[in-house]
Amino acid sequence: MTAKQKQYLKDKIHEIIYEADTKPGKLFDVILLFVIIASILLVMLESVDSFDAKYHSFLNISEWVITILFTIEYIARIVSVKNPIKYIFSFYGIIDLLSTIPKYLSLFLTGTHSLVALRALRLMRVFRILKLTRYIGESTNFVRSLRRSRVKISVFLMFVFILCIILGTVMYLVESGNGSGFTSIPRSVYWAIVTLTTVGYGDIAPITPFGQFIASLIMIMGYGIIAIPTGIVGAEMTKKDRDRIPTNTTSCPNCAEPYHRDNAEFCHQCGSKLDD
Amino acid sequence: MTAKQKQYLKDKIHEIIYEADTKPGKLFDVILLFVIIASILLVMLESVDSFDAKYHSFLNISEWVITILFTIEYIARIVSVKNPIKYIFSFYGIIDLLSTIPKYLSLFLTGTHSLVALRALRLMRVFRILKLTRYIGESTNFVRSLRRSRVKISVFLMFVFILCIILGTVMYLVESGNGSGFTSIPRSVYWAIVTLTTVGYGDIAPITPFGQFIASLIMIMGYGIIAIPTGIVGAEMTKKDRDRIPTNTTSCPNCAEPYHRDNAEFCHQCGSKLDD
Amino acid sequence: MTAKQKQYLKDKIHEIIYEADTKPGKLFDVILLFVIIASILLVMLESVDSFDAKYHSFLNISEWVITILFTIEYIARIVSVKNPIKYIFSFYGIIDLLSTIPKYLSLFLTGTHSLVALRALRLMRVFRILKLTRYIGESTNFVRSLRRSRVKISVFLMFVFILCIILGTVMYLVESGNGSGFTSIPRSVYWAIVTLTTVGYGDIAPITPFGQFIASLIMIMGYGIIAIPTGIVGAEMTKKDRDRIPTNTTSCPNCAEPYHRDNAEFCHQCGSKLDD
Amino acid sequence: MTAKQKQYLKDKIHEIIYEADTKPGKLFDVILLFVIIASILLVMLESVDSFDAKYHSFLNISEWVITILFTIEYIARIVSVKNPIKYIFSFYGIIDLLSTIPKYLSLFLTGTHSLVALRALRLMRVFRILKLTRYIGESTNFVRSLRRSRVKISVFLMFVFILCIILGTVMYLVESGNGSGFTSIPRSVYWAIVTLTTVGYGDIAPITPFGQFIASLIMIMGYGIIAIPTGIVGAEMTKKDRDRIPTNTTSCPNCAEPYHRDNAEFCHQCGSKLDD
Repeated sequence: MTAKQKQYLKDKIHEIIYEADTKPGKLFDVILLFVIIASILLVMLESVDSFDAKYHSFLNISEWVITILFTIEYIARIVSVKNPIKYIFSFYGIIDLLSTIPKYLSLFLTGTHSLVALRALRLMRVFRILKLTRYIGESTNFVRSLRRSRVKISVFLMFVFILCIILGTVMYLVESGNGSGFTSIPRSVYWAIVTLTTVGYGDIAPITPFGQFIASLIMIMGYGIIAIPTGIVGAEMTKKDRDRIPTNTTSCPNCAEPYHRDNAEFCHQCGSKLDD
Repeated sequence: MTAKQKQYLKDKIHEIIYEADTKPGKLFDVILLFVIIASILLVMLESVDSFDAKYHSFLNISEWVITILFTIEYIARIVSVKNPIKYIFSFYGIIDLLSTIPKYLSLFLTGTHSLVALRALRLMRVFRILKLTRYIGESTNFVRSLRRSRVKISVFLMFVFILCIILGTVMYLVESGNGSGFTSIPRSVYWAIVTLTTVGYGDIAPITPFGQFIASLIMIMGYGIIAIPTGIVGAEMTKKDRDRIPTNTTSCPNCAEPYHRDNAEFCHQCGSKLDD
Repeated sequence: MTAKQKQYLKDKIHEIIYEADTKPGKLFDVILLFVIIASILLVMLESVDSFDAKYHSFLNISEWVITILFTIEYIARIVSVKNPIKYIFSFYGIIDLLSTIPKYLSLFLTGTHSLVALRALRLMRVFRILKLTRYIGESTNFVRSLRRSRVKISVFLMFVFILCIILGTVMYLVESGNGSGFTSIPRSVYWAIVTLTTVGYGDIAPITPFGQFIASLIMIMGYGIIAIPTGIVGAEMTKKDRDRIPTNTTSCPNCAEPYHRDNAEFCHQCGSKLDD
Repeated sequence: MTAKQKQYLKDKIHEIIYEADTKPGKLFDVILLFVIIASILLVMLESVDSFDAKYHSFLNISEWVITILFTIEYIARIVSVKNPIKYIFSFYGIIDLLSTIPKYLSLFLTGTHSLVALRALRLMRVFRILKLTRYIGESTNFVRSLRRSRVKISVFLMFVFILCIILGTVMYLVESGNGSGFTSIPRSVYWAIVTLTTVGYGDIAPITPFGQFIASLIMIMGYGIIAIPTGIVGAEMTKKDRDRIPTNTTSCPNCAEPYHRDNAEFCHQCGSKLDD
């Protein structure tokens, strides 16, 4: 094989794998999507004991087939890309490697239980194919608001967490020692989180009247503060909006009118040319 | 019966069935509404074993009466409409047919269990009578925001779903094998969805301290991301608003640029005078 | 007692009962508030069997004391008001009567169980004293938005209800007959409401994998549509806002500038007088 | 030690403890943060019976070490601050004292159970170090909206509470006496709060069909009114916005009217020319 043929093959593979607009590229994406989803379904089914007992060899063979397909894809990606080192250490490069190796590792390791988590990482690869982030990304204003309110929401959630530790301690003092589930502070804190977030399993629930009274206060409080995360994002959004009302900062050189549309070339008040 | 009489009868039926403004049309709508609600109540009561055992023949006869009434209505609709084919294959045409035939089908089929679902479809017919969509439709700005954010909300819900698969797998690894409900990955994913959406049945709940710690993180995360669907709709709504506020409807007589500031006197693009 | 003395007494009682600004009026309000809250606490404690068994006679005497106090108040209100008939048939007049008579009725009736509900109505009287509606009423813009979106929210809740009937029927078909709680359609509908509103008791929960899959879809759907009531109110609020941006509709008679502040007397663009 | 040396030492301690910008000040903050978190973890672990039984002496010694560290810090704070009395009775001064003394108190008191709550107060000290309130405080518009809507949200939560008392009483009448958990009105009110806030433990759940029907109505109502707290905050936020947009900061040189439209050239009140 000449260097030219090699290069042609490399370009062809690159086109199939990395480009989604050509026909073989699209076909590749669709097949890969199905293989990934099939692989996730197999991981799930394997964990169902009754299914695993019945179809163990089928699951084993399928997993080998998928592993080999992923291995071929991984090698093809390295071969065809211009900068293989950069790909290997990129986010998706690491995901690709980790989601391929579990079956190989299971040959050497006996306790393969935790390798299941690695196989679940395959799901992340769906994002690359579907380019889902693009749909969210469109609404740049909302995403920017979300990003700027990230710190505030984290601080809010930390407040909630600290609140839950204090409330959990109080409930432990009130409820412990009478047969209810509040056997230790960590469990009581867990209960406070379950309650304040309105999840409410009911595996731990207050049984003394006073405990139920405090629990009621916590729930009503939780109902009141659920408006806060929405409010934080909303506040950022209106702030952004006020900033973005479509004006540009050029003042008119003739009449000094300071507010113009972003794409204005002439002053809307006196008609003279604006300089950019 | 002459063709003229036929036509008159057809027009009369059409008026009664399809028009809600005339007196007989209104009466027809009210009666139909009561028959539908009665029919749904009968379907519900039939499923209550103790009630079915006691009043089986009453339920059977009632269902036949309702079926016959619906049959007459269905035939009348076909006869009186101008384009019967179009009606038969329209959304409500199919709903009408499906909600009429279950009793007839039960004569030929033995396992009539799943026909109950067809009968529940009768509820959809309530929408045609009450024209409920009209009330929602009024708020066109909100509906348009909802429609435009439909894709984003779907993508968000898909993110939530994928997140739940990954979290469910992690919880399966942490909790499985110690008597808690996390017996398989699908069940753990089900638990993750129950938790993240703050439903929280409690049929499956973590029992190890580490599992409860991860569950707490999931709940607090769920509490934080509940602001996102609201935020998406809100972002679309303010976007709409921003577009509407600072434009006036005058087009420039010179360059036809349609968007100008509310108080513009000169076109911001070509500098020519705008006429109010 | 002369007619003048009578009138003086009547005015004095009126001042004490109906006016909150004078010193005796304030004192009366505070005492009444405490009597109402004490009365509600007694109703609650009476329902606790262990407490009722121990302090039955105390509860009985207290209830008589409160009933007599309320009777005196009721008579005083009728005597001192200008239009007694109007008061008696007003909202609070009926509440006052109903919350006074239960103990008298218990002399004639044996099954006094349902009279408890009448006594709970006493709580409504708290609103009159605290004038709570005033605090909410301040934010007129929000209240107006809420009132205008009332129809839409009702329609939305009706949609949710119809959705729950259909989903409940589907779950009944999937889950019934394998020992889970889905024993009838009404129960399944109840479960669907419990799930979609993210309450999630767990008294009924799907046990088949397919049932859990459908339940997951319902939960994720519920998580998505929780944005709708907030969105409806929000849409009304921004609509209102757009309408209210403080402009008045007078155009300047000199330069025809159409946008002015609500209280403008001179045109802000050319300085000529505006005619109202 | 001369007075000058004393003063130097005092200044040095003040710098370390109260200033976060210098190097030793930062180090002090980081160490203190770790000690506090370690202390909270010890409080939690102590409440876990199995852990306490195994490592009782370790926990006891650790608690003494932490208590002595906190004592030194408390004394250092008093010594180095300019106004010790003011510090001692300040919010954080009281928190510091209360979180230091539990171990000393346990020497004199036998039932040290409730001292655990005092030790949980140590968490509050985290706020001083991290200055978390600063992050929230940034978004002044949102915080101001939150503060102004505090009264309204409290009134709303009080409405919810009163609603729950009435609904709880109704459910008690419907469900009591048939083996369900509705054994008294207080318990029924507790259930109503659990349901309306969508927590839903399931420790108490209606079992009669009519009870489940009322419960369904309560849940759907709860789903509808969850928009209210968000709406209240949102209304305050848009109100703020409306006030801010259409004014410019120039006062009229003639009549001193301070509010003008952004593009005003003449005063809208007296008609005199505005200078930009």
